[in-house]
Amino acid sequence: MSDVLQTLWDTIEDRKRNPVAGSYTVSLFEAGLPRIAQKVGEEAVETAVAALSERDDRVVCEMADLVYHCLVLLAAKGLTWADLEAELARRFR
Amino acid sequence: MSDVLQTLWDTIEDRKRNPVAGSYTVSLFEAGLPRIAQKVGEEAVETAVAALSERDDRVVCEMADLVYHCLVLLAAKGLTWADLEAELARRFR
Amino acid sequence: MSDVLQTLWDTIEDRKRNPVAGSYTVSLFEAGLPRIAQKVGEEAVETAVAALSERDDRVVCEMADLVYHCLVLLAAKGLTWADLEAELARRFR
Amino acid sequence: MSDVLQTLWDTIEDRKRNPVAGSYTVSLFEAGLPRIAQKVGEEAVETAVAALSERDDRVVCEMADLVYHCLVLLAAKGLTWADLEAELARRFR
Repeated sequence: MSDVLQTLWDTIEDRKRNPVAGSYTVSLFEAGLPRIAQKVGEEAVETAVAALSERDDRVVCEMADLVYHCLVLLAAKGLTWADLEAELARRFR
Repeated sequence: MSDVLQTLWDTIEDRKRNPVAGSYTVSLFEAGLPRIAQKVGEEAVETAVAALSERDDRVVCEMADLVYHCLVLLAAKGLTWADLEAELARRFR
Repeated sequence: MSDVLQTLWDTIEDRKRNPVAGSYTVSLFEAGLPRIAQKVGEEAVETAVAALSERDDRVVCEMADLVYHCLVLLAAKGLTWADLEAELARRFR
Repeated sequence: MSDVLQTLWDTIEDRKRNPVAGSYTVSLFEAGLPRIAQKVGEEAVETAVAALSERDDRVVCEMADLVYHCLVLLAAKGLTWADLEAELARRFR
């Protein structure tokens, strides 16, 4: 895991264990799994539409939203980015 | 970028420059951006549905598909995972 | 409900009550709700991508797939197109 | 086309020709095709998630949103619900 993803992951895990008021991540965990899954789907739709109709920086922003919500989904399920990388390594190495 | 993502990224970039017959990645580049964008959306839908109705290992598999297609989308747009991490760092650090 | 939608609905309801081998509709009911929900999401992604990158006849084809899978989803949930029209009427009339 | 869909369609077409301030439909036409296509994808994701995790009335509400945005997409492309029904009739009759 890169430093950036690790920092983001640590923050998400911390928000899961120590809910702080006003945190968007906390609001997702409180909304529950269906809401988090919905956001993953929606951000991917936004990424796909941006890739076909918007500037590169918008594509990067939408995909950053998508990756963030994927990390939240993993954390909500009790899974980790390491689980994901293990699956990618199994396939592609 | 982690070793696993780096290896996967290098493979995708290599397939882009050196198309080899029978490669799924090459078939995506040849199908073009709309097809790649569509796959990002579809794999996210599969990830969301798996998160709500399937076992953890299925969620990880679908999200691995999603991340892989995101990397292909970045490569197809001439963008990089570093661009994505820079955006995540800008927001969350 | 128009004649076309009514005919399609009647066929879907008939397939639900009288499964026949080789029917795609029957295969959806047998695969279950997560698979049907997934198809609704995927066909909408294909509709959106077609609207941004393909010819009009492809948009119509993808949206026809989407509407068909919506009808199957309603039937799988024990809901009807009349329930949908009642909601639309409530909002827009 | 049913009375309900016809009324909704007529309203959408009227908003397209005669933009009125404060109309959500008008705001969609002004935002343009990528935004409308995005909404079709997002509402389908919400429909799929509702089908797997919410009550029946929520599924109907989300699908009503989806159908409405499909009608707006057809109108934005200069297509009609009749085009869609013709495609469904071609396949299923």
